[in-house]
Amino acid sequence: MRKLSVLFILLFSVIVAFAQKEDSAFIKRISDEILMNGKAYENLRHLTKNIGARLAGSQGMVKSEQWGLKIMQESGADKAYMQECMVPHWVRGGEDKAALKKKTAGATEWTSKTLDVVALGNSIGGGKNGISAEVIEVKSFDELEKRKDEVKGKVVFYNYKFNPTFIRTFQAYGDANKYRGQGPSMAAKYGAVGVVVRSMSHSTDNNPHTGSTRYDSAYAKIPAVAIGLQDADWLSTEINAQAETTKPAQLRLELFTNGHFLPDTIGHNIIGELKGAEFPEEIITVGGHLDSWDNCEGAHDDGAGCVQTIEILRAFKAIGYKPKRTIRFVLFANEENGLRGGNKYADEAKAKGEKHIFALESDAGGFTPRGFGMTGTDEQFQKFLSWKPLIAPYGCSEFNRGGGGADIGPLNRAFKTPTAGLNPDSQRYFDVHHARNDVFEAVNKRELDLGAVNMAALIYLVDKYGM
Amino acid sequence: MRKLSVLFILLFSVIVAFAQKEDSAFIKRISDEILMNGKAYENLRHLTKNIGARLAGSQGMVKSEQWGLKIMQESGADKAYMQECMVPHWVRGGEDKAALKKKTAGATEWTSKTLDVVALGNSIGGGKNGISAEVIEVKSFDELEKRKDEVKGKVVFYNYKFNPTFIRTFQAYGDANKYRGQGPSMAAKYGAVGVVVRSMSHSTDNNPHTGSTRYDSAYAKIPAVAIGLQDADWLSTEINAQAETTKPAQLRLELFTNGHFLPDTIGHNIIGELKGAEFPEEIITVGGHLDSWDNCEGAHDDGAGCVQTIEILRAFKAIGYKPKRTIRFVLFANEENGLRGGNKYADEAKAKGEKHIFALESDAGGFTPRGFGMTGTDEQFQKFLSWKPLIAPYGCSEFNRGGGGADIGPLNRAFKTPTAGLNPDSQRYFDVHHARNDVFEAVNKRELDLGAVNMAALIYLVDKYGM
Repeated sequence: MRKLSVLFILLFSVIVAFAQKEDSAFIKRISDEILMNGKAYENLRHLTKNIGARLAGSQGMVKSEQWGLKIMQESGADKAYMQECMVPHWVRGGEDKAALKKKTAGATEWTSKTLDVVALGNSIGGGKNGISAEVIEVKSFDELEKRKDEVKGKVVFYNYKFNPTFIRTFQAYGDANKYRGQGPSMAAKYGAVGVVVRSMSHSTDNNPHTGSTRYDSAYAKIPAVAIGLQDADWLSTEINAQAETTKPAQLRLELFTNGHFLPDTIGHNIIGELKGAEFPEEIITVGGHLDSWDNCEGAHDDGAGCVQTIEILRAFKAIGYKPKRTIRFVLFANEENGLRGGNKYADEAKAKGEKHIFALESDAGGFTPRGFGMTGTDEQFQKFLSWKPLIAPYGCSEFNRGGGGADIGPLNRAFKTPTAGLNPDSQRYFDVHHARNDVFEAVNKRELDLGAVNMAALIYLVDKYGM
Repeated sequence: MRKLSVLFILLFSVIVAFAQKEDSAFIKRISDEILMNGKAYENLRHLTKNIGARLAGSQGMVKSEQWGLKIMQESGADKAYMQECMVPHWVRGGEDKAALKKKTAGATEWTSKTLDVVALGNSIGGGKNGISAEVIEVKSFDELEKRKDEVKGKVVFYNYKFNPTFIRTFQAYGDANKYRGQGPSMAAKYGAVGVVVRSMSHSTDNNPHTGSTRYDSAYAKIPAVAIGLQDADWLSTEINAQAETTKPAQLRLELFTNGHFLPDTIGHNIIGELKGAEFPEEIITVGGHLDSWDNCEGAHDDGAGCVQTIEILRAFKAIGYKPKRTIRFVLFANEENGLRGGNKYADEAKAKGEKHIFALESDAGGFTPRGFGMTGTDEQFQKFLSWKPLIAPYGCSEFNRGGGGADIGPLNRAFKTPTAGLNPDSQRYFDVHHARNDVFEAVNKRELDLGAVNMAALIYLVDKYGM
């Protein structure tokens, strides 16, 4: 009996070793294919330079959807199609402008300095005449609360710093973005007429970073902009200088924004599919989101995730890989200001009674891959963890719990589908995130390609072994 | 007895846990200091923008040495000094130029296309009239050997590709750089009159990448240049097109380079020291090299390593750290084309009978840190490995065997001093390495700072626990 179990363990070890060798060889083939013949970079060039910005409802959205469908077909999908969903249609409506007007004590003239700002996504413009009001700086919601009686009729300037001591920059983002999301309504509650938010970034430049805000329907919808970091520091210095002098100047902040909503319009998730040979009913999803903010090319956010998704499809076909399970390559609609694409995808899956065993998203930039974050049961996490030695040589050596992506979140909530997100190095992400410098030139070809390599390896392992 | 040993183990565990907590808290303090108040980025701006290129023997070298000494003093070194060494003095001597001249079959006129080239460091120019000769393309030394009878009187074009399938780009560099180092003499052996080497890079641009070559004194010293990747591909296509047609055009490659040596001159290692309180005779060295190639600002190579080194000194002083052992912060002279600084440092250490317990170098760019490579005994490596959990949260999670740096290699050879090298992410390094785009703008502040954080943590642990 004892001998038998030793034999069994030996046999099992041999099988595991053989499978690992096979997997390792296969992943090397995928990697070589992508690093030698990859098209992700040229696809990204097209998406960013020939199409450009592609916010939900825009002409760029329509063009990018058509391109997405075509590229799915050309990359070898068994089936490529559009999944319709209604999307919000927010427009900036014109140029965002801001200036600080100053009248020194005793002077008769006002001086003016232009500030580099961008209206927050989903925010409502201040009308033809804009806003002109005194400005109050607060460092936090706590300070706002304490000084609520001073807020009425003023512009609130949230000058909360992106914390440099967090090593992973997404922590700083998670820490700071409540001021963008809730700041306008929190200020409107106390009668503010406008909001300026310090950009969520620790870049060394002055580009302002947009992103969506959410109005609380209980309060007035007041105009809201993000301001570049250098101008935020300058504005803070000006305000504090007045507070410290016995002869304060008058300061007024002028804001001109024009954001508004048009009626919802038709958008689409773009889906390419490779049908599974053994378990076609088991679906694996991999994707990124096709929409971007309107003030940039959306190269890192999330052109990178889209072209990596397409690249995995292309590479699988190029090396003749026939998946066991059905793999869906999805370019999601409207992640930035509505999440309608991700919700639609899960709703339709539910309506059709589909079986979704795993979903992977790349929506943290096209930077050098470092790891994956995974949401699932203990058992699923252990299985995921067992693949680390196979993937780590390609860059993803940090396998953490917790992760996924906004677009695949609804799938997890609907089916408890385990999800994972690619975690590229995060140091440069918030230098460009939602800012005018999120352009093709900010993406490095090899970093982008390696993201696709690591994602392809994970998808291959999930396809082979299930999840 | 049994109870006693249980008690002992418990006590030991408590002590270890306490020490780890203390270390962890200390490393967090260093990290916060560097990420909040770091001066590495502004120091790099000065070194690259106000001083610029600083090849051994140049005015830039002299200026950077003076700056280095001053900054060591300002950053709080107990003692800062210059260590003199003779350095080679190679000069480019003028503008490097190359063109492909072509006369189509039957035509009377020659056409000409300029190629983007840079003479290899230490190479000897072709004189006033330059070189004009037929060109032969080879993909490898094997092919050169097979076609050696065709080489005489020609320019040899080594078109060996930087292998994209290696994940870590230094592997591709190790694989390809023999063509730059030995290529000219290998070609001269068979009578070649000049050499063109494909740049060691997988950038997407056309910048040529220099670096030193080594002539074998048995053969003629022929001119040698590196060529940008796009021009390399174009040149290859032209050559092959002629080989495939029945009416080949005449092709001649023109090369104008002016490199030559002036007499050796005086250079210096710049050394800042913090004296150890408990074991002052035990020396820990941390450094980078101050020299750079003459065609760039040397921001990644190795301005980054220099300002990180200085930053560790600054941060230690800022938080009031008093080391147990003596820590030397060294900016080495002449790494690029002579290694005289590194050799001098080890020679002097030997002459003085110093005890060098550890040396760390940063000379792989100011990119996001990923790990350390370490050269030492098994026991030393295990100790080093035991620190990984303390450092990994700051980015360096890959602790590998084998590593150090060119400048601290002589120390390892002289004393068997264990050495380590910072391994930043390598994907972008060879986009800029030894090329005109190795400039300040290519360095990201946070990536640079985090390199210093991880190095400081390692130096702290070596200082506390020995090696």
